[in-house]
Amino acid sequence: MTAVRPVFYVSDGTGITAETIGHSLLTQFTDTHFIGERISFVNDIESAREAAVRINAASEIHGVRAVVINSCMDSEVSETLAESGALMLDVFAPFIEPLERELEQTRQRHVGRAHAIVDFDTYHRRINAMNYALTHDDGAAVDYSDADVILVAVSRAGKTPTCVYLALHYGVRAANYPLTEEDLEHDRLPDLLRQHRAKLFGLTIDPIRLQQIRQERRPNSRYAKLETCRHEVAAAEALFRAERIPTLSTTHTSIEEIASKVMSTLGIRREMF
Amino acid sequence: MTAVRPVFYVSDGTGITAETIGHSLLTQFTDTHFIGERISFVNDIESAREAAVRINAASEIHGVRAVVINSCMDSEVSETLAESGALMLDVFAPFIEPLERELEQTRQRHVGRAHAIVDFDTYHRRINAMNYALTHDDGAAVDYSDADVILVAVSRAGKTPTCVYLALHYGVRAANYPLTEEDLEHDRLPDLLRQHRAKLFGLTIDPIRLQQIRQERRPNSRYAKLETCRHEVAAAEALFRAERIPTLSTTHTSIEEIASKVMSTLGIRREMF
Repeated sequence: MTAVRPVFYVSDGTGITAETIGHSLLTQFTDTHFIGERISFVNDIESAREAAVRINAASEIHGVRAVVINSCMDSEVSETLAESGALMLDVFAPFIEPLERELEQTRQRHVGRAHAIVDFDTYHRRINAMNYALTHDDGAAVDYSDADVILVAVSRAGKTPTCVYLALHYGVRAANYPLTEEDLEHDRLPDLLRQHRAKLFGLTIDPIRLQQIRQERRPNSRYAKLETCRHEVAAAEALFRAERIPTLSTTHTSIEEIASKVMSTLGIRREMF
Repeated sequence: MTAVRPVFYVSDGTGITAETIGHSLLTQFTDTHFIGERISFVNDIESAREAAVRINAASEIHGVRAVVINSCMDSEVSETLAESGALMLDVFAPFIEPLERELEQTRQRHVGRAHAIVDFDTYHRRINAMNYALTHDDGAAVDYSDADVILVAVSRAGKTPTCVYLALHYGVRAANYPLTEEDLEHDRLPDLLRQHRAKLFGLTIDPIRLQQIRQERRPNSRYAKLETCRHEVAAAEALFRAERIPTLSTTHTSIEEIASKVMSTLGIRREMF
């Protein structure tokens, strides 16, 4: 029987940092079923007290001590949260002191700053990249000069979500090009792409998985036939090999992993937002 | 003079966890200019050795010890990285032991699992939410029954990036509706929206900021005139008040913060991807 355990991601901002590290930690404990809840914008004693009451109530209901992944910067807020009796894991505390010593400075106490807008230009770049991804989606481009990367693949192989992710999180201008039947038949990249060869990255996918995805989108169409999927994927892979385009299979790969691989392969260095 | 310090986000997976917590930590130290670099997929001793050489070289070049934010799960890999001589901050280490004690189980040693595909159904929900956001963007919908949330605002107030973020990271089906001149003139929501009142969330923005954004998009148009922006924003805000729609200004608010506020206000509970 799997044990159940309530987990709270508590933060003075969005809670993204707490939840990111919390998820990573908890994937290491597979014998427990964690019931997660986010409590964001806890930035004064009053909201900390309310949070502590909720956390305590969850411990009571489940008959087991809750776990709190806490990213609040204010120590009084953290102490108030600790009154819930939960296991407190403070995600910043262990690192502040070694950093203060190393950098020879005291940390600021900016609350909720991690995912706030720190710099308008950077933020602007991000929004522009996002607009770029949406206007250069699905081959809707006549010019790829401004692209940092062009994802090439057959329809439904994962291009669009990856482009949007690259834009949102790295400010990368990512366009995508769906290989047409004509491209695949002629076994040749369109000239529009050939001139940007260094920016190309090919995505491939297991034909059976592709068939499932297409079947959901256009049930019982020729497009969704396993035969069609097999043929298109084989032709695309042959094309990538012939043109020596770096390639990754998206079948068992998350958007985050694809994005990360694309950037490291093409040598695009951008800090994450 | 601001001190410069190289920082490496080293991971056996995408590096997202390391970079997320690293950024949060480093925003607390404003007297240092950090030069960040990501080293992903470090999952054997050989790649750890290569990483250590790069890190050590950066310390030499900048004449100051590099900082490593390390999320590798394997202790041998971490020890190899430490040979670089950098300040090692291991983002999981401080929390593993208290969790093992509390949960009375030994952690698994899944490498690079945090941002991998753990569960196909959940992953599928996420991709579907993403497609939903893109096909229900900019009022391109005749039916909002399947929406979890509908963002309402004037053009260029931040609806689309927020919808995409909600879909990508929380699997939330987020549609958006741009208020038309007609809506604003009649001071009344279209019937299409009125029937989904509980899902509505209004975004507003400072007219001067809006003017800058629109000016970049359609220079010197009526659309981009400050006069137009002022008028539209005032009318939208009046409409939100009259219809009692919860509202947030996006002027100084990041996509992450907007998404987080929307979910907590509308009571949408979803775990983050």
